[in-house]
Amino acid sequence: MQRPARLAATLTLPLVLACAASPDAHADDPPQRFTERTEYHGIQVERLAAGLEHPWSVAFLPRGRFLVTERPGRLQRIDRDGSATRIGGLPDITARGQGGLLDVSLHPRFEENQLVYLSFSRAEGRRDTVLAVVRGRLVEDRLEDVEEIFVQNRASSPGRHYGSRIAWLPDGTLLLSIGDRGSEPMRAQDTRDHAGSLLRLNDDGTIPEDNPFVGNEDVLDAIYSTGHRNIQGLVVTPDGTVWATEHGPRGGDLLHRVQAGHNYGWPVVTQGLDYRTEREIREFEGRSAAGVTPHAHDFGPTLAPSGLAFVTSERFPRWEGNLLAGGLRAERIRRLTLIDNEVRHDEELLLQRIGRIRDVREGPDGHLYVLTDASDGALWRISPQ
Amino acid sequence: MQRPARLAATLTLPLVLACAASPDAHADDPPQRFTERTEYHGIQVERLAAGLEHPWSVAFLPRGRFLVTERPGRLQRIDRDGSATRIGGLPDITARGQGGLLDVSLHPRFEENQLVYLSFSRAEGRRDTVLAVVRGRLVEDRLEDVEEIFVQNRASSPGRHYGSRIAWLPDGTLLLSIGDRGSEPMRAQDTRDHAGSLLRLNDDGTIPEDNPFVGNEDVLDAIYSTGHRNIQGLVVTPDGTVWATEHGPRGGDLLHRVQAGHNYGWPVVTQGLDYRTEREIREFEGRSAAGVTPHAHDFGPTLAPSGLAFVTSERFPRWEGNLLAGGLRAERIRRLTLIDNEVRHDEELLLQRIGRIRDVREGPDGHLYVLTDASDGALWRISPQ
Repeated sequence: MQRPARLAATLTLPLVLACAASPDAHADDPPQRFTERTEYHGIQVERLAAGLEHPWSVAFLPRGRFLVTERPGRLQRIDRDGSATRIGGLPDITARGQGGLLDVSLHPRFEENQLVYLSFSRAEGRRDTVLAVVRGRLVEDRLEDVEEIFVQNRASSPGRHYGSRIAWLPDGTLLLSIGDRGSEPMRAQDTRDHAGSLLRLNDDGTIPEDNPFVGNEDVLDAIYSTGHRNIQGLVVTPDGTVWATEHGPRGGDLLHRVQAGHNYGWPVVTQGLDYRTEREIREFEGRSAAGVTPHAHDFGPTLAPSGLAFVTSERFPRWEGNLLAGGLRAERIRRLTLIDNEVRHDEELLLQRIGRIRDVREGPDGHLYVLTDASDGALWRISPQ
Repeated sequence: MQRPARLAATLTLPLVLACAASPDAHADDPPQRFTERTEYHGIQVERLAAGLEHPWSVAFLPRGRFLVTERPGRLQRIDRDGSATRIGGLPDITARGQGGLLDVSLHPRFEENQLVYLSFSRAEGRRDTVLAVVRGRLVEDRLEDVEEIFVQNRASSPGRHYGSRIAWLPDGTLLLSIGDRGSEPMRAQDTRDHAGSLLRLNDDGTIPEDNPFVGNEDVLDAIYSTGHRNIQGLVVTPDGTVWATEHGPRGGDLLHRVQAGHNYGWPVVTQGLDYRTEREIREFEGRSAAGVTPHAHDFGPTLAPSGLAFVTSERFPRWEGNLLAGGLRAERIRRLTLIDNEVRHDEELLLQRIGRIRDVREGPDGHLYVLTDASDGALWRISPQ
């Protein structure tokens, strides 16, 4: 069985600052603070920091500070006054297409070990890239002892569908989503290829012995679930339930309740259509199939899912146990009410108020935090009014 | 078997001009002409007439003129220059809550017989209202020979859930939707009550002998399908397929492909939740049941459906065969791609651009026409760019 290589990450600068190709938000200069009525809560929305270049992920440091990744390859610490301090010691990052510096996640025992995890794309040869994960200790404004704990086992040239959200299970292992990379032939049903899967790793990158396919020669040991196109929202609830939002083809954006060892079907089972022809994609066999776990929710018209949060906060008592799913193209958050792990209601929040939503998180203080994807992106806080 | 009463409609004026309670559009003064990029067509959107008070329905007169109902009780002819001329000869209309003058539809052979059909609510006793339909001949600026061809068989006091779209089947009979009236106990499963049904009538209000329940003593002869909460979008395609959009409880707005004799389940089968508690409604038994025809599409987050159009126009070749479903609260049109009568894709158009959408129609000229619901509502035309 393969083990992810561990490389001493090179710490050389400058970082790659490739021009990002995605369209910017078209919300024209939203106010820095506004209120919105929703079905149950009046909310106040406040911009905490601006001038972030395509921020991708936010993590919560002690004492009300934040770590925010910028996709071109920078990690910023945001202090309570909104000022940003660049963190040094990052690995070489190749920002191309949808790639760059992506997720940031703190070890569950960060206060003891100061470990920060980063997912990112990096060049492999002249044309290809791979998705990789490093961890390092945050010492003042620098990552120290950076080690690559995961690298994708097959490089490819399209700079897209990296996935790459990180979330922690209650047992201290981590889940890492990895997109299908958008290369031909499609790879999400190839269980000897990391692409198009959700992976489960120990905190040092080794593979848990109780992973669902350990002992199955046909499937990589790291794989937790298969048949994913591009999971970009991932959250684990306090009871260990795993929810993921994933980009489908046109109109096929989905929510999954991910269970160990399950196959979610992509590309042979999908709810979406070919982007160009608006007909079935070539590999389509049906909207369901034996051996394929059905999706939990179909987001209908384009959402383009991004960060996913699960509300536990007592600050929002009527939202407790709801999912909040960010949308890039949709420029909104979908609030999903779950009853017995089934989505039973859906509300739109912040509709075109602040632009493309890249990340949604519940903070340790019970407020909700949102990143907007733009060349001048921002960090926002949502509080009850 | 009952026959709808035929009353000589009273022609007295003034009409009831009750203040409408619904919130106005919050699109602040949209431009009178703008363009929008969509997935396949660039569209131009142009306001043809403004100053319409809660317009509800538009019909197409010869030579590029329109008939538009205003819910407080006026019927307007809109000429090519956007000017409005009020049509006389209307019946007594009681505009209360969601009621008033609602749908307008021309007889399929209007050019021969000048027959105009209107659905509306009118008082019955001191507190109750019923839904009724009249037809009359349009002679210059006046309806002549007005006769009531249908009246609901049970009055009730809540001024809501009237339904009341009219659409014509290829055989020259008409379909009329009638909401459940929102009274307790719920009536949509009571097949001796018009409320909560789709009805099929001859053009003079008599009942076609081949209606699905004729001969069944337990079901009114006029009933075509049952178990509806409030159908407010209704269209028949050239091949006779019937599509209807209907208001559910919270999050339960649905599209149905309506088939003769079928039961669509409300209120025992529903996809939505109680508006107040965000839990199942009291009558809920399940999301599906034997004997209940499943919905064709769940609109997910609030749409608040209104007019429904089916695109046949060669002006929009990539939209041919699509449904366009208007949304009031959602302030958008949902474009639905059908493959083998199944919804396979969904796009949002005019998102919060012109306000609450009350009606969507394809005109005989192949352009698309939209009414916005506001105290200062408008008629808009959508053309390819």
